[in-house]
This record gives sequence, structure tokens and C-alpha cells, in this order.
Amino acid sequence: MQLPQTKKAIVLLSGGLDSATTLAIAQSQGFSAFALSFSYGQRHTVELEFAQLQAESRGVVRHMVVPIDLRLFGGSALTDDIAVPKHRSMHEIGQKIPVTYVPARNTIFLSFALAYAESIGSNDILFLGVNALDYSGYLICRPEYIHAFEHLANLATAAGVGGKKMTIHAPLIKLSKADIIKKGLALGVDYARTLSCYDPVEHKACGYCDACQLRLKGFAENQSQDPAEYISLN
Amino acid sequence: MQLPQTKKAIVLLSGGLDSATTLAIAQSQGFSAFALSFSYGQRHTVELEFAQLQAESRGVVRHMVVPIDLRLFGGSALTDDIAVPKHRSMHEIGQKIPVTYVPARNTIFLSFALAYAESIGSNDILFLGVNALDYSGYLICRPEYIHAFEHLANLATAAGVGGKKMTIHAPLIKLSKADIIKKGLALGVDYARTLSCYDPVEHKACGYCDACQLRLKGFAENQSQDPAEYISLN
Repeated sequence: MQLPQTKKAIVLLSGGLDSATTLAIAQSQGFSAFALSFSYGQRHTVELEFAQLQAESRGVVRHMVVPIDLRLFGGSALTDDIAVPKHRSMHEIGQKIPVTYVPARNTIFLSFALAYAESIGSNDILFLGVNALDYSGYLICRPEYIHAFEHLANLATAAGVGGKKMTIHAPLIKLSKADIIKKGLALGVDYARTLSCYDPVEHKACGYCDACQLRLKGFAENQSQDPAEYISLN
Repeated sequence: MQLPQTKKAIVLLSGGLDSATTLAIAQSQGFSAFALSFSYGQRHTVELEFAQLQAESRGVVRHMVVPIDLRLFGGSALTDDIAVPKHRSMHEIGQKIPVTYVPARNTIFLSFALAYAESIGSNDILFLGVNALDYSGYLICRPEYIHAFEHLANLATAAGVGGKKMTIHAPLIKLSKADIIKKGLALGVDYARTLSCYDPVEHKACGYCDACQLRLKGFAENQSQDPAEYISLN
């Protein structure tokens, strides 16, 4: 009789390209994946449909969707009715904190991932897909932040004291968007089933927001065609 | 014309004795208090009524109650149907992690407090009422944890980078329960409007769970009578 896989990992799954790649990396490293998504008052709940598609097609053990209402705290184009910037240059994209920033969002998400990790007991590993190069405006992406959360997690949790160490893996943190896509294509990620756009119409991406531009550039650098659907690209 | 108070603080308010005292301390230090409570699937939502009573009687600027469902992650007598231990000795109370531990709960609560702090903008101060002496089983209570969260907060937030430093105050962390009560009485905290019990019946405390025992001991050490209602004490 074959023993079941015992290495469990929580994978934060947003429905985007990065987290789909992170999920594939987790599985390629032998982890049983427990996916975690959030219904957080995002304007585009279609993201969650894409997360569900990834979870199903990659065969995760369980996909949990946690409802939290970040609109209570306001302040971002991803939850409020503020215009998403389009047609920004790569230089502009790298500058300052974008309006799509949600206060403390990622700290909240990681805290729930920590609770989930603890609750499934025998494992204590989290995965988080972030990218330090492309989204330099997002403070979450700094390695210092990942280390700080890992340190906190080990002070915070029962598991962290019981001898098992909580590890926060950020396998994308040193990769460019092109590198992420290259890795994901090699691992068979179905990028048609991902959505990165900040301003989609139904299931189609706009092609011109920061996220779309970075994604398209990444595919182009791989001499590859993005299989996702776009409204129009000209 | 008098200028409005500009120092704002988020105060985590549970309805218990500790957080009521923390609120009074925040106000005595000149902070305008923004109270934050959670509806997290706790078995006793009466806690929230006591939090509301404190918020109203102390005149906070706003009291926000955030719904989150920690039952998704199971594992505690505060959300599940596990018996609350009663009649434990003070020695037993100090031992190991109690069944009332909720995985990563306090990390989640602090993350929301961070979001709230950011969203009200001009201030970046949080208060948290914890007690290192009485609840030694609760890992949250260690100063290292508070420092770790503060460090994380400053890496995580836009405010933390913009030059303003986020500070996590834990004014009770070195106080015994008796010291906390002494301070609160001096600041006029109405302890009749607080509930500490893990197993209340309607609005009355049981008198025999760990929280009730610690509280009663604290009042006794102040030669004072706990004004809260108990089911019966004999």
C-alpha cells in the first residue's frame, strides 16, 4: 500500500498568473496543496471563478474561500469605484504605490493562511506567490516582509512553539514575469484559466492596465502567446 | 476655537476587562479612540454587546465590528462545542496552551487593526490589551510577538514607508490582573459593563472558568468587589 503524501502546503490562490504558477511549483516540490482564496469585496468576483478553475484542474486537496469585507477600510481601486490606470509606461508602473493597493491586505491574507496551516495540523508550510521585480510598488513583495511574517508566525502559533517551524515560501520573489511564465509553461500551467487584469469585462482582460501590460510583456519575452482572452488588442 | 484631537488610536475591544482598561488608558494618554471588534463565530456573541457598551460609555469616535468566520479553521472551545474547563487551580491555568486557543486569531485581529489604522490615515497607532502574567498559555502575550508584529507592520504598510512609524502599544503586558484592575478603577472603567467569562449564561459570568477565576482573584487582591453579574458564587 502506498502511503499518502504527508507534506501539506497552503497555497494562496487569487486566480491570477502568479498564484497559478505558485500552485504548480508547490505540487512539483511534492506538497499536497490546500488552496486558500478570499472573497474580499473585490470589484471583480470573476477572479474567484478563475481560482476555482485552477484549484480543480490542478487537483488540490481542498479549496477554501474565506469571506472578508475589506471595503470596510476603503482606499483602493480594487474594491472602490476609482478608475484603474491604463496605458502606463513600464517606468510609470514601477513608480510609487499604485491605487490598486489595499491597506494591509496581504498581511490579512497571510494571517488567514497561518490559521489554515495550523488547523490542518501536521503541516506548517505556506506558499505565497509574489514578484519583487514587476510590482515594485507593492510593499508586500520585499523579502524582508516575508521574513518578518515568518518570524511572527513562529512566535504566534502553537505549532511554531511545539518544535515544528513554520516556513513561508515565496518561490517567485526573485523572478521576473517572463521567468515566472517560463517556469509555469514548463510545469504545464494552463494560463488560459488565469486572470490578471484589474479591469476585466466578464471573463476577458482589458489588455491595457498595469497587470495586463506586464503579463503580455512576459509572454512576449518568452516568444509565446498569452492564451487568455482579451477584449481587444491593437 | 479649540482644535480637535489629532492623535488617533485603534483599540481592539473584546468586551472583556483587559480591553476596557486598554481603551481607558488610550484615552487617558490623549488618543481619540477608534474601537475595533470582531464577530468571529464566537459561541457567545454577548461579548459584542459588552464591547458596544464600553464603546458607547467611553465615547469612542467609531466602533467597527468586522465579521470573520474563524469556525472555518476549527480547533477551539471559543468557537467549537468543546467543554470549557472549570475549577482549575492557578497552577493549572498557567500550564500549556488552553483549549480556548483559536489558531492564529490574534494575528488575524492585529492585521485588521493595521488595515483600519491605515484607512483612517493621519494616525498609525494601535493599542492591544494583553497580559503576560495571567495568560501565560497564550502565545500572543509575549513582548517578542508584539515587537515582531510592529516590525511587520512597518514593512507592510504604505504609512510605514512614508516616514510615519506604526507603533503597537501593549500597555497591559507587564501588569498582573490585579494591577490592571487597579489602573482601570483609577481611570473610572465601569467593570460592570465587561464580560470575561468563557462560559456565560446570558449576560452572567460562570465564576469558575479560568477567566472568571483570574478576574475574581484580581478584584480580591484590590480589596474590591467585582461589579459584574455572576450566576452564583459559593
